[in-house]
Amino acid sequence: MKVIGVLTAGGDSPGLNAAIRAVGKSAIRQHGMRVIGFKDGFRGLAQNRTVELDEAALSGILTIGGTILGTSRDKPNKMAIGDQVWDATPVIMENCKLLHLDALVCLGGGGTQKNALHLQQAGLNVVTLPKTIDNDVAETDVTFGFDTALGIATEAIDRLHSTAHSHHRIIVVEVMGHNAGWLALGAGLAGGADVILLPEIPYSADDVAEAVSQRRRGGAAFSIVVVSEGAYSRYHLERYNELKAAKKETEDPDKLAEIEAGLQQALRLRRSRTNRLAEQLEIATHLEARVTVLGHVQRGGIPSPADRLLATRLGAAVADMVADDQYGVMVATQSGQVVPVPLDEVAGRRKTVPLDHPWINTCRNLGISLGID
Amino acid sequence: MKVIGVLTAGGDSPGLNAAIRAVGKSAIRQHGMRVIGFKDGFRGLAQNRTVELDEAALSGILTIGGTILGTSRDKPNKMAIGDQVWDATPVIMENCKLLHLDALVCLGGGGTQKNALHLQQAGLNVVTLPKTIDNDVAETDVTFGFDTALGIATEAIDRLHSTAHSHHRIIVVEVMGHNAGWLALGAGLAGGADVILLPEIPYSADDVAEAVSQRRRGGAAFSIVVVSEGAYSRYHLERYNELKAAKKETEDPDKLAEIEAGLQQALRLRRSRTNRLAEQLEIATHLEARVTVLGHVQRGGIPSPADRLLATRLGAAVADMVADDQYGVMVATQSGQVVPVPLDEVAGRRKTVPLDHPWINTCRNLGISLGID
Amino acid sequence: MKVIGVLTAGGDSPGLNAAIRAVGKSAIRQHGMRVIGFKDGFRGLAQNRTVELDEAALSGILTIGGTILGTSRDKPNKMAIGDQVWDATPVIMENCKLLHLDALVCLGGGGTQKNALHLQQAGLNVVTLPKTIDNDVAETDVTFGFDTALGIATEAIDRLHSTAHSHHRIIVVEVMGHNAGWLALGAGLAGGADVILLPEIPYSADDVAEAVSQRRRGGAAFSIVVVSEGAYSRYHLERYNELKAAKKETEDPDKLAEIEAGLQQALRLRRSRTNRLAEQLEIATHLEARVTVLGHVQRGGIPSPADRLLATRLGAAVADMVADDQYGVMVATQSGQVVPVPLDEVAGRRKTVPLDHPWINTCRNLGISLGID
Amino acid sequence: MKVIGVLTAGGDSPGLNAAIRAVGKSAIRQHGMRVIGFKDGFRGLAQNRTVELDEAALSGILTIGGTILGTSRDKPNKMAIGDQVWDATPVIMENCKLLHLDALVCLGGGGTQKNALHLQQAGLNVVTLPKTIDNDVAETDVTFGFDTALGIATEAIDRLHSTAHSHHRIIVVEVMGHNAGWLALGAGLAGGADVILLPEIPYSADDVAEAVSQRRRGGAAFSIVVVSEGAYSRYHLERYNELKAAKKETEDPDKLAEIEAGLQQALRLRRSRTNRLAEQLEIATHLEARVTVLGHVQRGGIPSPADRLLATRLGAAVADMVADDQYGVMVATQSGQVVPVPLDEVAGRRKTVPLDHPWINTCRNLGISLGID
Repeated sequence: MKVIGVLTAGGDSPGLNAAIRAVGKSAIRQHGMRVIGFKDGFRGLAQNRTVELDEAALSGILTIGGTILGTSRDKPNKMAIGDQVWDATPVIMENCKLLHLDALVCLGGGGTQKNALHLQQAGLNVVTLPKTIDNDVAETDVTFGFDTALGIATEAIDRLHSTAHSHHRIIVVEVMGHNAGWLALGAGLAGGADVILLPEIPYSADDVAEAVSQRRRGGAAFSIVVVSEGAYSRYHLERYNELKAAKKETEDPDKLAEIEAGLQQALRLRRSRTNRLAEQLEIATHLEARVTVLGHVQRGGIPSPADRLLATRLGAAVADMVADDQYGVMVATQSGQVVPVPLDEVAGRRKTVPLDHPWINTCRNLGISLGID
Repeated sequence: MKVIGVLTAGGDSPGLNAAIRAVGKSAIRQHGMRVIGFKDGFRGLAQNRTVELDEAALSGILTIGGTILGTSRDKPNKMAIGDQVWDATPVIMENCKLLHLDALVCLGGGGTQKNALHLQQAGLNVVTLPKTIDNDVAETDVTFGFDTALGIATEAIDRLHSTAHSHHRIIVVEVMGHNAGWLALGAGLAGGADVILLPEIPYSADDVAEAVSQRRRGGAAFSIVVVSEGAYSRYHLERYNELKAAKKETEDPDKLAEIEAGLQQALRLRRSRTNRLAEQLEIATHLEARVTVLGHVQRGGIPSPADRLLATRLGAAVADMVADDQYGVMVATQSGQVVPVPLDEVAGRRKTVPLDHPWINTCRNLGISLGID
Repeated sequence: MKVIGVLTAGGDSPGLNAAIRAVGKSAIRQHGMRVIGFKDGFRGLAQNRTVELDEAALSGILTIGGTILGTSRDKPNKMAIGDQVWDATPVIMENCKLLHLDALVCLGGGGTQKNALHLQQAGLNVVTLPKTIDNDVAETDVTFGFDTALGIATEAIDRLHSTAHSHHRIIVVEVMGHNAGWLALGAGLAGGADVILLPEIPYSADDVAEAVSQRRRGGAAFSIVVVSEGAYSRYHLERYNELKAAKKETEDPDKLAEIEAGLQQALRLRRSRTNRLAEQLEIATHLEARVTVLGHVQRGGIPSPADRLLATRLGAAVADMVADDQYGVMVATQSGQVVPVPLDEVAGRRKTVPLDHPWINTCRNLGISLGID
Repeated sequence: MKVIGVLTAGGDSPGLNAAIRAVGKSAIRQHGMRVIGFKDGFRGLAQNRTVELDEAALSGILTIGGTILGTSRDKPNKMAIGDQVWDATPVIMENCKLLHLDALVCLGGGGTQKNALHLQQAGLNVVTLPKTIDNDVAETDVTFGFDTALGIATEAIDRLHSTAHSHHRIIVVEVMGHNAGWLALGAGLAGGADVILLPEIPYSADDVAEAVSQRRRGGAAFSIVVVSEGAYSRYHLERYNELKAAKKETEDPDKLAEIEAGLQQALRLRRSRTNRLAEQLEIATHLEARVTVLGHVQRGGIPSPADRLLATRLGAAVADMVADDQYGVMVATQSGQVVPVPLDEVAGRRKTVPLDHPWINTCRNLGISLGID
């Protein structure tokens, strides 16, 4: 009888429990394996904090948000204990040996794929699943969690339409996505946004204002502007690049200090981008603007049917991989098919929105501004 | 300036208005076309009942269920007017000529593809979009409407779990799908059903009862059985085939009448299948069973973000097709890409669930009964 | 330290777990009591099947539908065991004594109040809470479960509007409520129904048809008819009363048999009332009609915030009652205040919709038909 | 035939369209009146921007969020036009005369009641309805909009539980309510919050930290803290009062400047209270804390059934008031009954949460911290 361990790492994501359930039920019922859960991601793996994932533990969890196992952002090779950072790899290897673990299943996002590859290279048999509401894991069509977050963000935009329309206001709504604009683009299109700003396309505040003003001239005295957390302006980008270039040119400590202060300020400004954009729009368009930051509600709650289906299907496939001794892979979907992808092709890469993506083209066709003319 | 007509035909489906909006906004803004809507499907086309689809008419409809154009199940070549059935094709051709229509966009399911092909062959320039909550249109990955219906059916199953669990009951829930089991299979998997019965896999009531009893022996004194509208039992199938065969063997009018009565009864029984199955399960398992027929709620209401995205993307692509004079095609998605499919490859065909579909395999892996052992 | 027992009886209802949690947490934290749950209503009380309701058991249940304790429709004094019906009262008294129970808290609807009164009269200290989605418990403004069911039924009516409107159909939707029309009236008003039929107001199919036809003449070629499970026609009522009267007049066995058959048929017809009404409307109005029976979905799922608030507030009040040794009462709300009502004022009574209720007047003001002119 | 005008003023609120529909349909169908809508609140009244509210305009708006009439925060007697503030009362009187208006119906919150009283005193026949998501209008049990906002805020808290639980975090969630804590208290109780901070009860950050730490010692390594927008700390209150007192004591310009700076800082700190509280909790409890500000999503979207019922019932009652020439009143609910309340008893007053409110007591019974020990 094979023994498999399961952990969830990184930010929590709807569908994690559906995936744990599918891995577990499939491993137990189809393959006769034993399934052990580790608490709080790689930290629990290092600390040997386990829970038996039997039929009873796997029952009734399909619709629960978050992860019953708990999660953390710890890395196996750089784990903070008290004030110290510590390589927990040998302890982890030892724990897995003591538990007679045949395989370790890691559910997580981009960072987790890296950590899983590290443990695979250290000698463990690892299989992973891609989850994140940001949808930015490489080599897979889509990650579970994304569809639920899309639903929450779209519903919020639907609601903000009421206020925007009734008060003739600009509503600037910030959605999650530090590095990839999938959520902003998807929710913006589905929610009928008028402007969508992505990390992939530096925007011009003037062009955003012009798009809003043009709507007003056409008779629509309100606009919805959807902004990715990680979006930034073209001006900001140029200023940042200039400072970076200037930094290389000089060794004068006074100038360096000045440049460094400029870079710090640029970072601060980036953080308050959404509020500043709202102010810029008020000045340029003479309409009231309001900001809403959706925040952590986007990660939580009952997973959508599509996320449950994806997580369940992938979870069952993971158990098959382990049964076939196929390790060192992330179980992905490509063109709708389940495929194993070698971890080293995934780790350290990120899937951003390509500029010729159909959703981008659809925006252009419908006249939705992407913040540049 | 090109002029295009738009109509919606067949059963209403969430996402139709999102598609109308995308066709219209894209045609107007991107291609400078004029867009005319026909009321109530092919009937309105025959009766020349039109509405101008300008910016104002297209605004605020993205989230509305049903279709602002109205729909009907009429066929161009067999249209009932009063007591008569009538070939409206020539009148339709004339109407389109008078309106200087360059192209006709038909949004509908399997039947609509056939009707659209008929008009294309009669000389119109036709482009179609696949919509149906049943997801059974050929040559496309998925139809808009399906994800919303999946959400409604799954939520209903989630709710029925409360009662099933609290009362230790079997809940038999019938979901839409006369010919294809996509909705039952998807909602069953996503909703954590214990048994899923599809039109594609004739079931045995004994095997269903055994699956429920086995759960009970394992300590779970409740079960959720999801049944497709069009599912039927193996016994029923055999009886039906026998009668059909017998019909061919005889010319004796008495025997024929008897056989015909048997076939009629078989059809009647099929219609009340869900109730009979519940009774059979009560007798076999000594548990209480209750039936819920979800019905028309599955077609209605606000479209899901995924359906809005799909409908919007396909709608924008339709306008591109017309701009490129590409006619006689349905705009489909295949492996995630938008592709035009010749109407004669789609019309008259239906996409049922293949027996080796990943969702079927996932059911087997998780120990979900498909009604046969 | 006082010991209290808690059970849930009758049909499951959203908010039961919120109430159990509030009774338990308040009893433990505020009053230092011990709390024991009985499984499956009065049956578990008779069989001494218990579960400790400590902090851990009460955690995380606020949002779960149904009841974690299970429920049944068994009565203490008429409990079916195998083929026999049996008075379990002495066994129940003995069990409570062995458990050193100071008080028993019964959560249930009208029937449960009766059963609780019976146990109070047999010598137990009983406090009850009113729950039911039907809102028909006497002497309380509202029962928890009603607001959630109202939300589900209203959302269903919202969805059916899509189809009714797109297809120009009459949709007849049957909602729960055998004896009281609260749910039909509330959901009908909130959902914008055109006709609402209640058990309290026998309807005339002709008047319903006239209301639909009048809408059509005014340009609205669709209607939503909301029907309470327990609604019946004036014709049916008269026919039933005639037969009942005729039964008293005769002793002729042939006539009696004929009358009895008539009564049976009347009952059967009542059961299929919704389908017949739809047929009558099709014939009278020449519009298509479709029937949807909402069924058990109305009882299930996550309780609404209002139901959670009500259940939590009442649950906390129950613990106060027990602390004050106030027994033999149902904890009700009257004009928004929590008040204890003696069980003998509640048991055996039912709160139906009074004909001068504000919602009835609102229907009249808005021109919503109640099925009589 | 009487002619009535309708306007919506102040912040938009779910249920406004349901109320407009009920006023209009009832006025037209029941009383044969003519109904005129004014755009954008009192501003449209001054500018004579009207829309005919006939059957067609009132159809299909029941479920739409916001207000079809538009709204603004303008006051009749202090209206900003360009750079000037202007008393529009005489113009309004003239407009109403020209339109032969018999009565004006104003739908709004606390400010609107004041403005309506002003117009009543100036000679118009005014009836008002109380709407606001904050539930802080005096002399009425509840305002429409509140139940919908309660639902949105509670659902958000449900979702935040996923993240709090999975990551062992403190989640501090800020909900609307500048002056009254109804929404925070209701959503906190319904959402299972551990700490609830209201404007009515100045909190101590130490006591909040102690409540969270106590939960942790009991084994729950996460907490949900719900904070009203208008909540502030006891420390802050004392500091503010001291400065206010000191201001009265001195005439020294330097000291006054210093005090003024202190008051300004206090206001700034109050605005960033939620973020500071999260930091204080991180330091005191050694747990991670995250802040979510729900913002404008709380005002938007489809009204809940309870809000639709309330708005519809009150709207119909308004038409009755006008028919009976009963003016100068707000149509309120008290103990569940509809009653007219003289506007001068409502205007300028606000309904805050009384410290002996049942929800407050329920918090105490369940051990939910109110931020003071």
